[in-house]
Amino acid sequence: MPGVQAGPPPSPQLFFETVTAFHKTEALKAAIQLEIFTAIGEGNQTAAAIARRCQTAERGTRILCDALVIMGFLKKDASSYSLTQDSAVFLDRKSPAYLGNIVSFLNAPDMMRGYEGLPAAVRKGGTMLENQGSVTPDNPLWVNFARNMAPMMMGASMDIAGLLGDGAGAPWRVLDIAAGHGLFGIQIAKTNPQAQIVALDWAAVLEVAKENAEKFGVSDRYQTIAGNAFDADYGGGYDLILLTNFLHHFDRAACVTLLRKCFTALKPGGRAVTLEFIPNEDRVTPPSNAAFALIMLASTPAGDAYTFPELESMFAEACFESTEMTQLQHSPQRLLISRR
Amino acid sequence: MPGVQAGPPPSPQLFFETVTAFHKTEALKAAIQLEIFTAIGEGNQTAAAIARRCQTAERGTRILCDALVIMGFLKKDASSYSLTQDSAVFLDRKSPAYLGNIVSFLNAPDMMRGYEGLPAAVRKGGTMLENQGSVTPDNPLWVNFARNMAPMMMGASMDIAGLLGDGAGAPWRVLDIAAGHGLFGIQIAKTNPQAQIVALDWAAVLEVAKENAEKFGVSDRYQTIAGNAFDADYGGGYDLILLTNFLHHFDRAACVTLLRKCFTALKPGGRAVTLEFIPNEDRVTPPSNAAFALIMLASTPAGDAYTFPELESMFAEACFESTEMTQLQHSPQRLLISRR
Repeated sequence: MPGVQAGPPPSPQLFFETVTAFHKTEALKAAIQLEIFTAIGEGNQTAAAIARRCQTAERGTRILCDALVIMGFLKKDASSYSLTQDSAVFLDRKSPAYLGNIVSFLNAPDMMRGYEGLPAAVRKGGTMLENQGSVTPDNPLWVNFARNMAPMMMGASMDIAGLLGDGAGAPWRVLDIAAGHGLFGIQIAKTNPQAQIVALDWAAVLEVAKENAEKFGVSDRYQTIAGNAFDADYGGGYDLILLTNFLHHFDRAACVTLLRKCFTALKPGGRAVTLEFIPNEDRVTPPSNAAFALIMLASTPAGDAYTFPELESMFAEACFESTEMTQLQHSPQRLLISRR
Repeated sequence: MPGVQAGPPPSPQLFFETVTAFHKTEALKAAIQLEIFTAIGEGNQTAAAIARRCQTAERGTRILCDALVIMGFLKKDASSYSLTQDSAVFLDRKSPAYLGNIVSFLNAPDMMRGYEGLPAAVRKGGTMLENQGSVTPDNPLWVNFARNMAPMMMGASMDIAGLLGDGAGAPWRVLDIAAGHGLFGIQIAKTNPQAQIVALDWAAVLEVAKENAEKFGVSDRYQTIAGNAFDADYGGGYDLILLTNFLHHFDRAACVTLLRKCFTALKPGGRAVTLEFIPNEDRVTPPSNAAFALIMLASTPAGDAYTFPELESMFAEACFESTEMTQLQHSPQRLLISRR
């Protein structure tokens, strides 16, 4: 019989878990769509009660809720389900930090298609999606991103504002490139009441950033530049330029070109602030940063999860004096502060 | 700002990992399709060498191989990739225990569709697939299963033959219900040279079982009954009846009906041998057994991962004298031995 050995046989367990990993994605998406977490947050505890609230079958509800317990999204005590702390904050539709809508970004049909096309992407060395995938100009995906991804960035935005210091009321001029939801600039404006933010992004995305600036009470210090970060006129004299989750979409040459523009737009002594998924030089640790490279392969022509030496050399080539890396506390991501 | 608290903020990490869990499935499928594991097994170690062998881009290959290291399927030393023991045994196309073809069963379009339809299945309490999903008579999925799933069952089949004892050369008559690849009966025939096996399954599936019986040298003691386990004439006087991964497809009433047929077909003192994904009574541990219920919700009208008390009561209702449960050693599954 093939594969039979004297000792314990090798295990196909990891293989099985991985080929069925999409089950977990679909179970979580189903629970969000059916408002299972919201129903439990309202006090429905048993499969029968949740099923009544969600207009589902008790049997299907019991099986789905048990799967959610196994996956770590619910707790179970006898036949009673309850929310974990994280599920209560992020998955109950009534929570202000609800992020269930993120599935419409991370699991958008184009993103799914990019992954199903991975063999073609590996052959080609870049996304098989047409029109440059996720970095197509004015791709509506980024409005979706801006509308839905803010709650994922809360921890990182607080860490960054803390690391930059409060400016002691200095009249900072801050350029937020590819601002998206705008959270990173907004958090700085909240920390330093003298900071002026200039957010750059596609016009449709800026509508979301402006709504957030209004909501968080900083719209009187919030300006915008609509357009492409490679072509737009930044103006100049900035104390800070934010490059949050942006460089990873592009190849080295494009990044250096962009960093030269940033260098020119900064005051002497000004800082470029780069948030990235930065793996160690082995490119396989820490896992959540290193795994990001595959997302770029699936969805962009030439993006990557760059290592610190790679990024440092891009900043050096763009004439920055120094670049230092810090591990964020509330996010697996890392921050670079590069000084002009 | 919503969700901001004084202490460390709650983490969206598990949510993010889960909504992107399908990335892992697609990465593994791509690696199998591109023969990355086979290429490394042939001695290609660097991304460049693997890319030449697989006709892929070096950049795409590097990113995919790093993802496979992160996922635990490869090892990496500087820029050299190597196979883990499990990948060498199960994912190198040249290994006799290669199971890469399993993706054509576990990730068949119908299975994927069943999962994408989970919200509908939860509402209905059973699969949204037409024609009873995976349990449609003569569903070609089961030929696919029989052809491809045998390597996953190697550990369990050896454990079971060991637990049943060698029969000390007794002329066992063994009925293997829904035999599939036939491995469980064949392993008994190999252990006890006096055992006669009768395999029951759809005619197209039995072709696979017969090929395996031939391959493993037991075809002279291998007979078949083509048809549906609920309607077929089993004959009688069996020492053993095997019910491996079968009961979970059906509701309790159907299971009891089937077990009554088994009871009648067994000799007094004969044993029904049931392999199942049996969760503890909490239905959420151990995880790999408990998670199986969701597969049944997605793909069958009324199947489930039954607990031991549920199964014991079905056997009792079918007049079996006793049912004992054993945890297999080389599989997360559990075995029931029920005595007539």
